[in-house]
Amino acid sequence: MSTIRVAINGYGVIGKRVADAVRQQEDMQLVGVADIAADWRIWPAIEKGIAVYATAPDRLAVMKETGLAPAGLLDDLLDQVDVVVDCTPKHVAAENVKTYRTRGVKFLVQGGEKHAVTGHSFVAESSYAGAVGRDATRVVSCNTTSIVRTLTALKTAGLLRRARGTLLRRATDPWESERGGIMNTIVPEPRIPSHQGPDARSVDPDLDVVTMAVKVPTTIAHLHYWSVQLTRPAAKQEVVAAFRASNRIALINTADGLTATNVVKELMGDLGRPRDSLYEVAVWEDMLTVQGDELFYAYMVDNQAIVIPDNIDAIRALTGQVPDANESISRTDTALGLGAGFR
Amino acid sequence: MSTIRVAINGYGVIGKRVADAVRQQEDMQLVGVADIAADWRIWPAIEKGIAVYATAPDRLAVMKETGLAPAGLLDDLLDQVDVVVDCTPKHVAAENVKTYRTRGVKFLVQGGEKHAVTGHSFVAESSYAGAVGRDATRVVSCNTTSIVRTLTALKTAGLLRRARGTLLRRATDPWESERGGIMNTIVPEPRIPSHQGPDARSVDPDLDVVTMAVKVPTTIAHLHYWSVQLTRPAAKQEVVAAFRASNRIALINTADGLTATNVVKELMGDLGRPRDSLYEVAVWEDMLTVQGDELFYAYMVDNQAIVIPDNIDAIRALTGQVPDANESISRTDTALGLGAGFR
Amino acid sequence: MSTIRVAINGYGVIGKRVADAVRQQEDMQLVGVADIAADWRIWPAIEKGIAVYATAPDRLAVMKETGLAPAGLLDDLLDQVDVVVDCTPKHVAAENVKTYRTRGVKFLVQGGEKHAVTGHSFVAESSYAGAVGRDATRVVSCNTTSIVRTLTALKTAGLLRRARGTLLRRATDPWESERGGIMNTIVPEPRIPSHQGPDARSVDPDLDVVTMAVKVPTTIAHLHYWSVQLTRPAAKQEVVAAFRASNRIALINTADGLTATNVVKELMGDLGRPRDSLYEVAVWEDMLTVQGDELFYAYMVDNQAIVIPDNIDAIRALTGQVPDANESISRTDTALGLGAGFR
Amino acid sequence: MSTIRVAINGYGVIGKRVADAVRQQEDMQLVGVADIAADWRIWPAIEKGIAVYATAPDRLAVMKETGLAPAGLLDDLLDQVDVVVDCTPKHVAAENVKTYRTRGVKFLVQGGEKHAVTGHSFVAESSYAGAVGRDATRVVSCNTTSIVRTLTALKTAGLLRRARGTLLRRATDPWESERGGIMNTIVPEPRIPSHQGPDARSVDPDLDVVTMAVKVPTTIAHLHYWSVQLTRPAAKQEVVAAFRASNRIALINTADGLTATNVVKELMGDLGRPRDSLYEVAVWEDMLTVQGDELFYAYMVDNQAIVIPDNIDAIRALTGQVPDANESISRTDTALGLGAGFR
Repeated sequence: MSTIRVAINGYGVIGKRVADAVRQQEDMQLVGVADIAADWRIWPAIEKGIAVYATAPDRLAVMKETGLAPAGLLDDLLDQVDVVVDCTPKHVAAENVKTYRTRGVKFLVQGGEKHAVTGHSFVAESSYAGAVGRDATRVVSCNTTSIVRTLTALKTAGLLRRARGTLLRRATDPWESERGGIMNTIVPEPRIPSHQGPDARSVDPDLDVVTMAVKVPTTIAHLHYWSVQLTRPAAKQEVVAAFRASNRIALINTADGLTATNVVKELMGDLGRPRDSLYEVAVWEDMLTVQGDELFYAYMVDNQAIVIPDNIDAIRALTGQVPDANESISRTDTALGLGAGFR
Repeated sequence: MSTIRVAINGYGVIGKRVADAVRQQEDMQLVGVADIAADWRIWPAIEKGIAVYATAPDRLAVMKETGLAPAGLLDDLLDQVDVVVDCTPKHVAAENVKTYRTRGVKFLVQGGEKHAVTGHSFVAESSYAGAVGRDATRVVSCNTTSIVRTLTALKTAGLLRRARGTLLRRATDPWESERGGIMNTIVPEPRIPSHQGPDARSVDPDLDVVTMAVKVPTTIAHLHYWSVQLTRPAAKQEVVAAFRASNRIALINTADGLTATNVVKELMGDLGRPRDSLYEVAVWEDMLTVQGDELFYAYMVDNQAIVIPDNIDAIRALTGQVPDANESISRTDTALGLGAGFR
Repeated sequence: MSTIRVAINGYGVIGKRVADAVRQQEDMQLVGVADIAADWRIWPAIEKGIAVYATAPDRLAVMKETGLAPAGLLDDLLDQVDVVVDCTPKHVAAENVKTYRTRGVKFLVQGGEKHAVTGHSFVAESSYAGAVGRDATRVVSCNTTSIVRTLTALKTAGLLRRARGTLLRRATDPWESERGGIMNTIVPEPRIPSHQGPDARSVDPDLDVVTMAVKVPTTIAHLHYWSVQLTRPAAKQEVVAAFRASNRIALINTADGLTATNVVKELMGDLGRPRDSLYEVAVWEDMLTVQGDELFYAYMVDNQAIVIPDNIDAIRALTGQVPDANESISRTDTALGLGAGFR
Repeated sequence: MSTIRVAINGYGVIGKRVADAVRQQEDMQLVGVADIAADWRIWPAIEKGIAVYATAPDRLAVMKETGLAPAGLLDDLLDQVDVVVDCTPKHVAAENVKTYRTRGVKFLVQGGEKHAVTGHSFVAESSYAGAVGRDATRVVSCNTTSIVRTLTALKTAGLLRRARGTLLRRATDPWESERGGIMNTIVPEPRIPSHQGPDARSVDPDLDVVTMAVKVPTTIAHLHYWSVQLTRPAAKQEVVAAFRASNRIALINTADGLTATNVVKELMGDLGRPRDSLYEVAVWEDMLTVQGDELFYAYMVDNQAIVIPDNIDAIRALTGQVPDANESISRTDTALGLGAGFR
């Protein structure tokens, strides 16, 4: 089995994390990253010895002027790789896709793009098989990834009838919170249901899920509340066991002092996770309640980190080298340190 | 019918608003307010010509020292009134109640106290009749008031089977946000279900309601999301009509630019409402969605203002002078300017 | 002396406050307001019985469609007034000025415009005389107004040599804090000195003042810190007396519980000030310190309210009906309730 | 030269960072850490293989119950070390000091304690020599450390006459921001001058420095603004060169996109710094302005990280093994990656 050669287009919030994660995989090689920026955002890539490419000739010129020593153009990079991970801003990727197709490079886009861009939507624990050997897939958004992971766990345990969720969304990311944020307010999404429910069904059409979404003034993480109709009355421990079966769902407890998103984030930094990343859906176990055939729970979603493992698995799936989902998931999780628990 | 003589014990967030509202009623007289504070919080009462009493002799001395010219002690105030509205901080009222009972003064406490303190819990549109002529009642909390108002509207229309809500709570009030707040985080209540569901049933035991609550970093207002199982498939306009039947539920639209809690609050100030008060539950009409027999909606709760009309009605109910709920509600709403809409 | 007929162009944060203040003056009449908006922002004007004009024919059509019953076009409004107060967003006014000049209507613009637009910059306590009878003036920004007021007080007392200030700016206004804000960060202005120092000298060229400015994540108010070189060693009480001589500087104390901007703002609401307006520069008296010939102090600036009195005075100055600054200031302050203190 | 054996008492914000930094030094050994906590805060120490001791028998019992496998009591730890770094909360250390003295263990306390506790206050670049061979010293607070570093640089260059600073303080740390924070307000310290100026003089009595401090609603970092009277008119490049001479002052530019505290913090994470630590005082070079003999500038202080290098140097100073400040500073900086710049 040959090493998978990977390019990242877009070295932003997701791109830089995928880049690091690719470098942690034994069966992958990060050939380079491409971006339009020539400022502080690129310095760390240079510092880490990553080859940096410009997305266009004018950007190449700027990079050279600022002394960044770029390795060439995106086109040069694409020539050298098996898969390109597109992490450009929302809706930009749709244009890039033409280039990837023309050049015959397999690619994956992020959840900001529409399902139709690739015709396949990806969450490793649900739709890996369908992506094996494809030309392209779309790793769904952070919110949708968390929904599919948790509902797939319930579905696998035979417990899921229908799920109704309220999604509290972080308003902006920390790196750009000096502009474009919200202050001292709560901002409901103007439409109910929100798009995440239908988006989850682009991964698994069997899910009966409705979501409502609202922006709150925090930069750290999303937090979801769920009211689930089970297929039958169940014991709390059945539900907990269903969640525990996934390495990508972490059970946490307020009784351990993990009482809020800021505390969980601090723990990730203390554990030495790169950029304090919480790759897992962190479900509060002691908060989770079953009443008859109804289940209520809440979890935290690190919107910057949660899709990183799925990006890695999606790369493998597209190459066709690892046909089995569990095999890929296991490799990814071992490399990233998932599944060992937080203590 | 004689003028109802009212005292307020505790001139804080609720007390000062009830004081103003009492002064707006034709059938009531504010005899005075009592408090422990002798600082800026009391200046406006003096400025408005309200008689200020001290809750204890040592506080009376401090008030005199700072030149506030207090009118006497709480005991003196209680001698002169028919009803005392207790607005002291959570759990303090339970002690005051002994005094009220000893002196034979009818009283009402706020939602921070337990139901057992008075044996009756009050939301005007649901439980007015049961409070008529009683010695005491308890006006439930802001969150519970909003729940009972909206679910009562659905129940009255024959539409309510069961309701599951996620309650986003403001973390602290503006006046004390220089301490004790939360910053850049989301803090789930450690227990699911939260207490508001059972509390709503202290007003109306028939309600099938489960709530989950979470604190978010804003000072302005709460915001609730609901997933309701209706008794039957319904049209959106039936639900809207059910809500519109109440003066204390205001229908607002994002299409008018009322897109978030801060905007709605600004409108209240622009309309000249005292302290920018939103007395109504503000339900987003264009967001509200019915899917078959399921209803989804969100509303804003001004936690400082929403219980004020109910406090006024509760005063009337206790005196027994206005046996009919609708008569009292109508008087209160007219005096406070409810029901005219925002445009 | 005839009643001054006033128009407001731009019914936003400043415009709506000036409108209310004009209506409180005995010698003025608010003929109408003009705006482009046809949403919730206009409802309160209609509710208050203010004649609303559209700034352009297409906006007139939209207003009619939404049932707002507009009174006509801005041009119609300008025909009926002596003075128009331009409160349109930053840099928009520069274009409007041509219209005002063509029509021969006296006008005043706000501090977002350049000094050259009118050739005169206005703070009542410093430059009233120079505006008497002029065609136009510019009421400087909230920050600059506070600087000129306080430094003028020190200058008048013969105490001011030079002043160096650090200006903490609120990041955005409450009504639009659901977008465009900053979150959990501090954002320095990229240039030192900031523009407020030179702007203060557009009002009074004698001031030796340098400012540095920084945005902080709050919506309530600005807060300035000053380090002032006095002309000579002075006693604290001399400085306090200098500030106390102005009705538009309010001395407050942390010892009264007025410890932060949120608390002071709450007090304004409790006092019944419209929209909780703090028109004064609120200087903390017990914080103010003199060390030899150096003075240190901090004050709060309600950026939405502080320029309102100066707008009123500027209207009078332009008409020439009240040549004396003190006479106008006194009328304005009496109408708005300044100078009575907060207790 | 023997390896310095180090204990940390208090595994909190500072303690856990010092622990990691000690482990990065070639001439030091972290023998263990002591704490009272038995929850998530201790898990990472266990995970990293650090020996954890309990500060008291009852805490030892709790640690054992929760399965943490503690190594013993603080007393056992103190027996094995040359120096103990006290990182317990403010004012707790004063009591611990008696134990350290009784047992004859050299110790250092943090800036929350008074100067008198050790009789010596430490910033490596200013007062290292005075700590060599002492029994104890006190590493001053984050704010004071930044002041002494920058003013020492100006003093060394012969440029400093007197400095007047406004200190914007972060309101609380991220790990505990789910409680005890401030929201949407600005909170001035009630006393001017604030304590940081005198505290800087506890390190270097020659400094002529006055500070004013104010809390702002952010968790990320402090930000200081300075107005400095130079000894003579100077060129900007002289000042920049003075700052550049220190490894512990980093010059950054808004022109590189480093426009606010959140952006700089993100860069630290991208560079792989543990817990995104900014050990340096980050002075904005393109913002810094000289006008004649006056200097104006602003810098960012990562309050969680800035004192870590000084703690390491203080350990070395107490042992007497490295008499030369520059030698210690150089070792520390190399181990922690300071001085290489950010690009």
